[in-house]
Amino acid sequence: MNITLSQAENIIAIAQKKSKSIDTKMNIAVVDSGANLVAFVRMDGAWLGSLDISIKKAKTARYFDMNTGIIGSLSQPGGSLYNIEHSNGGLITFPGGVPIKNKNGVIIGAIGVSGSTVENDHAVAEAGAEAL
Amino acid sequence: MNITLSQAENIIAIAQKKSKSIDTKMNIAVVDSGANLVAFVRMDGAWLGSLDISIKKAKTARYFDMNTGIIGSLSQPGGSLYNIEHSNGGLITFPGGVPIKNKNGVIIGAIGVSGSTVENDHAVAEAGAEAL
Amino acid sequence: MNITLSQAENIIAIAQKKSKSIDTKMNIAVVDSGANLVAFVRMDGAWLGSLDISIKKAKTARYFDMNTGIIGSLSQPGGSLYNIEHSNGGLITFPGGVPIKNKNGVIIGAIGVSGSTVENDHAVAEAGAEAL
Amino acid sequence: MNITLSQAENIIAIAQKKSKSIDTKMNIAVVDSGANLVAFVRMDGAWLGSLDISIKKAKTARYFDMNTGIIGSLSQPGGSLYNIEHSNGGLITFPGGVPIKNKNGVIIGAIGVSGSTVENDHAVAEAGAEAL
Repeated sequence: MNITLSQAENIIAIAQKKSKSIDTKMNIAVVDSGANLVAFVRMDGAWLGSLDISIKKAKTARYFDMNTGIIGSLSQPGGSLYNIEHSNGGLITFPGGVPIKNKNGVIIGAIGVSGSTVENDHAVAEAGAEAL
Repeated sequence: MNITLSQAENIIAIAQKKSKSIDTKMNIAVVDSGANLVAFVRMDGAWLGSLDISIKKAKTARYFDMNTGIIGSLSQPGGSLYNIEHSNGGLITFPGGVPIKNKNGVIIGAIGVSGSTVENDHAVAEAGAEAL
Repeated sequence: MNITLSQAENIIAIAQKKSKSIDTKMNIAVVDSGANLVAFVRMDGAWLGSLDISIKKAKTARYFDMNTGIIGSLSQPGGSLYNIEHSNGGLITFPGGVPIKNKNGVIIGAIGVSGSTVENDHAVAEAGAEAL
Repeated sequence: MNITLSQAENIIAIAQKKSKSIDTKMNIAVVDSGANLVAFVRMDGAWLGSLDISIKKAKTARYFDMNTGIIGSLSQPGGSLYNIEHSNGGLITFPGGVPIKNKNGVIIGAIGVSGSTVENDHAVAEAGAEAL
């Protein structure tokens, strides 16, 4: 099972709407089940450095099939996954990456959002992931 | 002057329509005047390896403000720009990357397309670039 | 549709048998439909530099859903895909990478083989790809 | 002294058996005395991001001839090897990488395992390393 472009575009549209509703400017990336980019948008005025972060968040969420913030809670100094960020060409492990499931609960991709606080990033990613 | 997301999405929509009209499946990337990604789509079933190529074509077209194929004609063995592809983290210098100009002729970004023959890639990129 | 580890191991076993029958020592890699590694073996005494080449051949074959040698015939100086090897973190475009199809003809991964002449590399990859 | 493919495959088979016995899905990599990959398997459904981590764990264990977790205890903030993970193209220093010794105690390679908790990863790596 893999996400379609139509699904990815729908997810990004919902995520953009959420982003605007909380007055933020986001980079939004969607990857497929193989962690390869399917669709991406950078909203006007969004941070340039968040471009790469949004893509890495989406990849990270699919790489481990969990929200990126969970990994970040384990990768702190003294944590069991300390410095896991050095793998896979660079992970981003703070909130804003969320797996995307189809109606049967199968993970078919992931969304990554970056451009505001991690709380806002996560909220927008969550809104997108729930669009299906 | 810089491209907006709205313009980039319009360009991608036109490029997708052109791609479908010639029965191809494309990766389509649009970068801004800073050569940074603004929007991207991978059509269902498009080659996975064309993801990176489409982005590199868009960047290459903006890096040098010309169609990528022109650079490729100069980067051949014995040519004046031989192996320029080693720069900038990897250029793609065959056709499919085209600068995007606004109505006053100012370059505000570039489009890169990959997924078929270079002739088809260029035709789709050209259609997108002319959308504005 | 994606390749299973059991299928990949079977493919590698057949490829190894073919490699021994022609008195060669190979690196053999199998990637899935997302171009991510599923299984790999380096036969005793096989060239060390062929490790990376075998993986890149498998990825390249899946990236473009064709034998790697076909791409190489188009990426020569003056060819339409000249220097495509600079994309995707490095492609290998000489023979030895072959897509893997299931019984319905759907591509579910790819095999890459390196360690001898490109003719031998291709023969071993072909034997592996036909194992399913 | 260097590990053979036959030994590496035996080690991976034992590690897979251990992985199944504790109901986990692992990426398992074996490198030789030169820290170069000899054999690799990704069990069906194992985390995609653990592919790279398992290989980096195996390399890290051989780079320093010790269990990866030991290095991780020294690479914490304030520790003597703080941020050593930046070397060698990226190390992984939490548990799951274990040197492989022959019957005379000579290190001939290393195994890296990733796909579950670090305790489970280490248990599976240890089972594999003891197979010889």
